[in-house]
Amino acid sequence: MSILDFLLGRPLSSREEQGQRIAVLAGIAIFGLDALSSAAYGPEAALTVMRPLGALGNQYLVPISLSIIALLTIVFFSYRQTIAAYPGGGGSYTVARENLGSSAGLLAGSALMIDYILNVAVGISAGVGALVSAAPSLQPHTLALCLGILAAITLINLRGLREAGLIFMAPTYLFVGSLLLAIGIGIFKTLAAGGEPTPVVAPPAFPPQIAAVGWWLLLKAFASGCAAMTGVEAVSNGVTAFREPVAKSAQRTLGIIIAILIALLGGIAWLGQAYHIGATDPGGPGYQSMLSQLLGAIAGRGAFYYVAISSVVVVLVLSSNTSFADFPRLCRVIAETGYLPTSFGARGRRLVYSEGIVVLAAISGVLLIVFGGVTDRLIPLFAIGAFLAFTLSQAGMVMHWKRTGGRHARHSIVVNAVGATATGITVVVVLSAKFMEGAWITVIMVPLLLAAMVAVRRHYESVAQEIAAPLEFSPGKPNPPLVVLPVQRWSLIAAQALRFALNISPDVRAVHIECEESDRLVKEWQDHVARPARESGLQEPVLVVIESPYRFVVTPILTFILNLERQNPGRIVAVVIPELVESRWYHYLLHNQRAALLKALLMMKGTGRIAIVDVPWYLERKQRGGD
Amino acid sequence: MSILDFLLGRPLSSREEQGQRIAVLAGIAIFGLDALSSAAYGPEAALTVMRPLGALGNQYLVPISLSIIALLTIVFFSYRQTIAAYPGGGGSYTVARENLGSSAGLLAGSALMIDYILNVAVGISAGVGALVSAAPSLQPHTLALCLGILAAITLINLRGLREAGLIFMAPTYLFVGSLLLAIGIGIFKTLAAGGEPTPVVAPPAFPPQIAAVGWWLLLKAFASGCAAMTGVEAVSNGVTAFREPVAKSAQRTLGIIIAILIALLGGIAWLGQAYHIGATDPGGPGYQSMLSQLLGAIAGRGAFYYVAISSVVVVLVLSSNTSFADFPRLCRVIAETGYLPTSFGARGRRLVYSEGIVVLAAISGVLLIVFGGVTDRLIPLFAIGAFLAFTLSQAGMVMHWKRTGGRHARHSIVVNAVGATATGITVVVVLSAKFMEGAWITVIMVPLLLAAMVAVRRHYESVAQEIAAPLEFSPGKPNPPLVVLPVQRWSLIAAQALRFALNISPDVRAVHIECEESDRLVKEWQDHVARPARESGLQEPVLVVIESPYRFVVTPILTFILNLERQNPGRIVAVVIPELVESRWYHYLLHNQRAALLKALLMMKGTGRIAIVDVPWYLERKQRGGD
Repeated sequence: MSILDFLLGRPLSSREEQGQRIAVLAGIAIFGLDALSSAAYGPEAALTVMRPLGALGNQYLVPISLSIIALLTIVFFSYRQTIAAYPGGGGSYTVARENLGSSAGLLAGSALMIDYILNVAVGISAGVGALVSAAPSLQPHTLALCLGILAAITLINLRGLREAGLIFMAPTYLFVGSLLLAIGIGIFKTLAAGGEPTPVVAPPAFPPQIAAVGWWLLLKAFASGCAAMTGVEAVSNGVTAFREPVAKSAQRTLGIIIAILIALLGGIAWLGQAYHIGATDPGGPGYQSMLSQLLGAIAGRGAFYYVAISSVVVVLVLSSNTSFADFPRLCRVIAETGYLPTSFGARGRRLVYSEGIVVLAAISGVLLIVFGGVTDRLIPLFAIGAFLAFTLSQAGMVMHWKRTGGRHARHSIVVNAVGATATGITVVVVLSAKFMEGAWITVIMVPLLLAAMVAVRRHYESVAQEIAAPLEFSPGKPNPPLVVLPVQRWSLIAAQALRFALNISPDVRAVHIECEESDRLVKEWQDHVARPARESGLQEPVLVVIESPYRFVVTPILTFILNLERQNPGRIVAVVIPELVESRWYHYLLHNQRAALLKALLMMKGTGRIAIVDVPWYLERKQRGGD
Repeated sequence: MSILDFLLGRPLSSREEQGQRIAVLAGIAIFGLDALSSAAYGPEAALTVMRPLGALGNQYLVPISLSIIALLTIVFFSYRQTIAAYPGGGGSYTVARENLGSSAGLLAGSALMIDYILNVAVGISAGVGALVSAAPSLQPHTLALCLGILAAITLINLRGLREAGLIFMAPTYLFVGSLLLAIGIGIFKTLAAGGEPTPVVAPPAFPPQIAAVGWWLLLKAFASGCAAMTGVEAVSNGVTAFREPVAKSAQRTLGIIIAILIALLGGIAWLGQAYHIGATDPGGPGYQSMLSQLLGAIAGRGAFYYVAISSVVVVLVLSSNTSFADFPRLCRVIAETGYLPTSFGARGRRLVYSEGIVVLAAISGVLLIVFGGVTDRLIPLFAIGAFLAFTLSQAGMVMHWKRTGGRHARHSIVVNAVGATATGITVVVVLSAKFMEGAWITVIMVPLLLAAMVAVRRHYESVAQEIAAPLEFSPGKPNPPLVVLPVQRWSLIAAQALRFALNISPDVRAVHIECEESDRLVKEWQDHVARPARESGLQEPVLVVIESPYRFVVTPILTFILNLERQNPGRIVAVVIPELVESRWYHYLLHNQRAALLKALLMMKGTGRIAIVDVPWYLERKQRGGD
């Protein structure tokens, strides 16, 4: 256990739960990383769509960013209200389920689960991708780097929420600080230059214009830019992780995250337009990220540039941590309603929902391995889940206010209805714009996951019904079982098992598969067992020798037991299996594992009337022999 | 089981053993493939060493081949005698062990085991290498081809010795036939041309001479050429596989194999010299195997050439089959003396020693994977094992004749002593010539394997001593165990387990880890269990509720059981574990596997006084409830 203690920390008592709760500053690092890191790729995604417009595309960056910021503001007010209304953790699942019915809840839940899983794979792979393009010699180790980072993040999260917050705070604030500083310098320079600043390092020239401005293109640019909004729902899912007063702490955290995000998005857009920055071809040789261009234009390629760019890479990698904070909580909430295995609800040694963390790490690890650590093709998939959840959760809030009324109900309904409509439209736009690029996978995955969850709940219901407690239990007169004891040769192991058998029932049958040593066993049984039993006036244990022309050992014993059970209705058959327990794992190879095989087959083929009794014999350890 | 029947054939009864024995023709295919295929690479190996001599090297081919043939003849007579002296299977292990002591036996045994394993990897990889150089588009699939062939050969061998013989006969005789035919044509043409035949396709020119003729070079060439002798010991290991009279059949098989091998080696050497054939650089671009040059020179590049070359490739691949015939028999013989796990001695459904086959396939599969299907670097390793075994076995025979005497003892001693000396010298030459190239690995592996086998035997001896049958067994008065029953909630599963517990002992304690449902369980236990038991006048089963601040469930139960055992010396503790058995494997994920964990921990941490009783409950199957 000491290795576990070292890796994961000492177990925390359930009473220490309050100490694990987090305050606003840590909350921003834990639940905000996903949202904040979006600022690094959202505006670039919009610009990339507008590349066919050449230099003209740059002109639309500010208007598109403003619409995204407007939508973000609506979503912010909407989630603020959700947090206030659901201080017990108002994830999209809960809100949609309670207000729109369980199907809507499951739809939001499965969309979010897929979103969280993709976020881990894409976040880590994007960060490693940036690292590898800076240090090409690491290229062959892409997958190993991805998996190593995944393992580290998993371990940190298993150590508990508080520790994760402490560890992730420094990079988060370095990222926010250096970007805000760069934006401040940029704004100053731009204003000083009368709106036309001279870049320190000039950005690449725009490609020639090859398309006309059209509504569909601008809508697609908007939809791509909406990637900047993913991760905003995180706080509302994790309300219960905050210190008292939970709702206030959570609201304040969300408010600060959104404010920073708006400052970053607005600043990047305005400066991007002022410095005439366009997107470079993402797959092409001269690729340079928009943030890199902007930082170079504002501050040149000095130490500051490298600090800022490094913090971007780190935050991209760590953005996956938000999934680790939220996915287990989401799974727990769904498990509590019976749609996922109950074990998702158990708190591990550090009071986190360990199973959710491990499952998330495993699935995203598989994704990383399948895609070789390069998950670009998954990116189109993952805004859909987030926006579907936004829409359902806000539609749910509209119903909530309608039902509960209250002082500001009318006002709240408007806020949430506008939010639901705007995000709903975004879902449709993103889905149609990116359907062929891979969004269709989400369209298939969500219903599959939903169906699986319904099947899980149905299974639990049928089991619960099947094993419902009996109204009456009559102990009755004890009825000792029929005992079967497989014996290979007469030894201390067999003797110990026989002693146990005779202690639980007078009715013992030893079975033996005929081999070269059979005659000897029959004689020894007569001398050492049958005769002493007769002399003590006990019922004589029978030795049954079974022929086996095909040299099978386990199958004939199994057949014997199943026949015995069939011929003795109303009696329980107890199979007493003497088993050698090796003191070293490699000794395992030296002894045949027929006992294990027989146990497994009895478990599989048995009926409710066969019990399996293991009488272990510990090799090379002092047996504390019984009676 | 029907898939197994299809893949491996129906199980064979032990009485069908005689029908599985093989005659001379099949014996040549099974035990001779390794030896015969050596003709394809032995002479070439000698020529390759002599490349620095340029055209001069060619002149030494016949003398070197003659010395190898002489050594081969000695070894042949020596093994003929071994077969006669050990008709029960006189492998090098048995002969060395019985005459020189068990250390010598283990030395021979481990050398042979390593030789057999390497032979599989090298044979398959050499054949696939030849195939790939003929069809370069297969290059990327090298490893897959190797593993596919390994799987096919394994499967054929698991189907039984007789089937393997039948399947491998055709390629063996095609190989022998086409090579002998080519040699015949070549001899005719050479004689007709007065010793200087005109090649149909001229072989490549010799490289310039860059070294002088020296003893060490010629000795190295001889040592390399000795690779042609590997596989000769195979028949003597497998004597018991032959039809009656076993010794005669085996001797005749060995005689024919050696005669063909000598004809092939002699013919190839003589014609190689007559046609002025030299070795090309094995790693170089213009590489062409010596056999390919010779066949081209004799018969041109027509259909015959391709048939003959294909048969060479097939036979190289199949030469690994000899290992599959012998390795399991060797392991069985070693296992019977206690130095390897006893399971190597069990005959599988088709009367072959399946475990040895599977282990051989697994180890050589790992070798192939580690070396990516290209095992050139293993080749230097594997003549050593064979020659070490030759030497020990013949030295053993010298002692055998000395001890037993007999009519021709003097004559036999001379034959075997010459053989032992010649092969012993070869071991030293090969070892020193190839030490740096990889032979040192064998020098490390053999002692390691030897030490492992000694450890295995020591373990078996200590176990046998520990569990030796008790002289006296006193059944005594039955002493019912103390029963512990972990209960999570009151359900039909718990009720079934409790019923079993009460049937084997009146002394039952239920343990429960405190949780939210504890109060309900305490009440239900009172109503459904304690009260009815009291009313029936039975001993009341106690319910023990244990607190668990760290939310562990299994550990506190384990501690409770271990304490109970310690506090009740002289009593056996039976832990009755109610276990849900899912009807579908994926339902496994939906239920926590605490029962399995508790069982595993009890098995590990338990003492000889704790028995584990599994009372399975079959979900979604009609329980045939007891009493």
